[in-house]
Amino acid sequence: RFGYFGKDKLEEMKLLLCTVSGCLTDGQVYVSATGEEMVSINTRDETGIRMLQNENVEVILLSSSASPMPEALLERLAKRMGCGWKQDMGFSQVQDLLDSKNLAWKDVAYMGTDEEDVRCLNLAGLSGVPQDAPKVALTATKYVCNSRAGHGAVREFAEHILLLLKKAKSKMEQDRIRRDLF
Amino acid sequence: RFGYFGKDKLEEMKLLLCTVSGCLTDGQVYVSATGEEMVSINTRDETGIRMLQNENVEVILLSSSASPMPEALLERLAKRMGCGWKQDMGFSQVQDLLDSKNLAWKDVAYMGTDEEDVRCLNLAGLSGVPQDAPKVALTATKYVCNSRAGHGAVREFAEHILLLLKKAKSKMEQDRIRRDLF
Amino acid sequence: RFGYFGKDKLEEMKLLLCTVSGCLTDGQVYVSATGEEMVSINTRDETGIRMLQNENVEVILLSSSASPMPEALLERLAKRMGCGWKQDMGFSQVQDLLDSKNLAWKDVAYMGTDEEDVRCLNLAGLSGVPQDAPKVALTATKYVCNSRAGHGAVREFAEHILLLLKKAKSKMEQDRIRRDLF
Amino acid sequence: RFGYFGKDKLEEMKLLLCTVSGCLTDGQVYVSATGEEMVSINTRDETGIRMLQNENVEVILLSSSASPMPEALLERLAKRMGCGWKQDMGFSQVQDLLDSKNLAWKDVAYMGTDEEDVRCLNLAGLSGVPQDAPKVALTATKYVCNSRAGHGAVREFAEHILLLLKKAKSKMEQDRIRRDLF
Repeated sequence: RFGYFGKDKLEEMKLLLCTVSGCLTDGQVYVSATGEEMVSINTRDETGIRMLQNENVEVILLSSSASPMPEALLERLAKRMGCGWKQDMGFSQVQDLLDSKNLAWKDVAYMGTDEEDVRCLNLAGLSGVPQDAPKVALTATKYVCNSRAGHGAVREFAEHILLLLKKAKSKMEQDRIRRDLF
Repeated sequence: RFGYFGKDKLEEMKLLLCTVSGCLTDGQVYVSATGEEMVSINTRDETGIRMLQNENVEVILLSSSASPMPEALLERLAKRMGCGWKQDMGFSQVQDLLDSKNLAWKDVAYMGTDEEDVRCLNLAGLSGVPQDAPKVALTATKYVCNSRAGHGAVREFAEHILLLLKKAKSKMEQDRIRRDLF
Repeated sequence: RFGYFGKDKLEEMKLLLCTVSGCLTDGQVYVSATGEEMVSINTRDETGIRMLQNENVEVILLSSSASPMPEALLERLAKRMGCGWKQDMGFSQVQDLLDSKNLAWKDVAYMGTDEEDVRCLNLAGLSGVPQDAPKVALTATKYVCNSRAGHGAVREFAEHILLLLKKAKSKMEQDRIRRDLF
Repeated sequence: RFGYFGKDKLEEMKLLLCTVSGCLTDGQVYVSATGEEMVSINTRDETGIRMLQNENVEVILLSSSASPMPEALLERLAKRMGCGWKQDMGFSQVQDLLDSKNLAWKDVAYMGTDEEDVRCLNLAGLSGVPQDAPKVALTATKYVCNSRAGHGAVREFAEHILLLLKKAKSKMEQDRIRRDLF
């Protein structure tokens, strides 16, 4: 079930919520006895996030309550990419976040792979998961990436969002011209 | 020989013993000249361990005497996942551990890949090895994961255990109802 | 579209410009909360760079302005391999560099994978990209490596350059002999 | 050309010389701006080295002069595995080493992947290279592993050596019995 199945009409996309573990990273955590934990990200995904920001789509990195991540590490990743971040996000916290921003689910893109991401994947105007995500997420999402988590999935989803936005914009332009003509 | 071949009746599962090197990790050890050694784990496997703990299956991480691991690193991994840990475990040490806990082998699940894990894999009520385990372990185990070591094998085995436990429970329920009826 | 499609006459090759992220590395960046960032390179690629230097082809490592890299890390990589380095290189900076060295594009080999590398890939006498590069770079390049970024692509491109140089040299030798004969 | 092609009669094997970069490791070097370099090894390969040592085959780790490795890192790897180590080894240094140990090439096993390892691969009583070695090494070796460098190749070659030694021993035993009978 690769590619996009679902409504492909998009009017606006104001926000991408993206979980870190298993989306932006491949889920590997490097651990030493006393040192800090490390994770790895791909510069291609980073570029994808910048591409969205350049088109005025806000990006917020999430760590879910199911797979917690050291707050300092999450903050550092977010800083590096110039995006916001939220720790311990379950469904109700995400709902609160949208409320506080006066955003409807249809204007939000969501990327996540955990069981508790399912509701958000279902509600979001656009949702995406990496190719190697657990079944529960593959079933709930609207878009399945060809790329793997931590190795280009976020970039691919970002390009998908930008393509749909472009389509929608050119459609609106056409409609406006038609209205002006008749 | 993927999937489960063997008895699939499970009454109880009280304990999962899981070796770290080559099961929870992919066996890679990162070494610098003076720094500490690092290993990597996957957050999916971590989630698998939490799923077992939530169903009251204790999880203990083992390092075998054949592939020793710095004690501080083993302790740190165990702490991170909220499980116990035992260093330098050969067959007799595992037997002692079960005795001290008053557990029979049939109530224990075992995951390991070394030559010295073979006896435990044979005796345990349930045993599992990652897809990329050495032949000696693939031959001895009851369940072979589709996932690789350090990349989801522990999660897959945990889900397998929980599924069998669920089956067993619903069977017991059925039997009880039948008994009540006649 | 593996292999070399385009002019295979090469007279001289004085300089290889090679972007680091996604060419010399596989694009993965290892991040901890407070520690420094790490990247990984392959010793085979390192050997490839030394092979070029031994034949008097200068090698300069670039970080593009699109995917910036900590300057100290870029410098360290360059030092390790005994090559020069330039930070934040877009097209005009590359052009300035060639001008300052009195080099024409035909005497330069270029390796890069970002959108902004496309012009350089088109202009360079020889250009190469790793097998797993983004489409935009695969379309623009003259040579597509069989090897992946960070895992031998630079070595392969270096061997390709040296082979063409050898061919060109033996051709010139032949021509000289012919001239002498008639 | 997998498997063993060549003489499979082995009388004794007293020494394994194994290059580190691209045999014991996969050639990846992890670099940060100011920190030390890291490499990764697999515990399975470590076990292979121990198996040889238990059968009185000495193991010495080599770094070739072509792909130098920080001495402290080489020493640390060797210490971890309880083997000797030699830095900057070209062909003549290896020859000197054998001379000083009064060993003939036929009693030595060699594992290496660089151009300068070719002569040693040719001369050694047994030679092995990982599956993903450069062509020049694949052509020169007697045994090609099914495993990749840094991911089990050394273990596989160790098991191959031990198997041949066992065969040779049982053959000698047979011959002795025959002699005693007639």
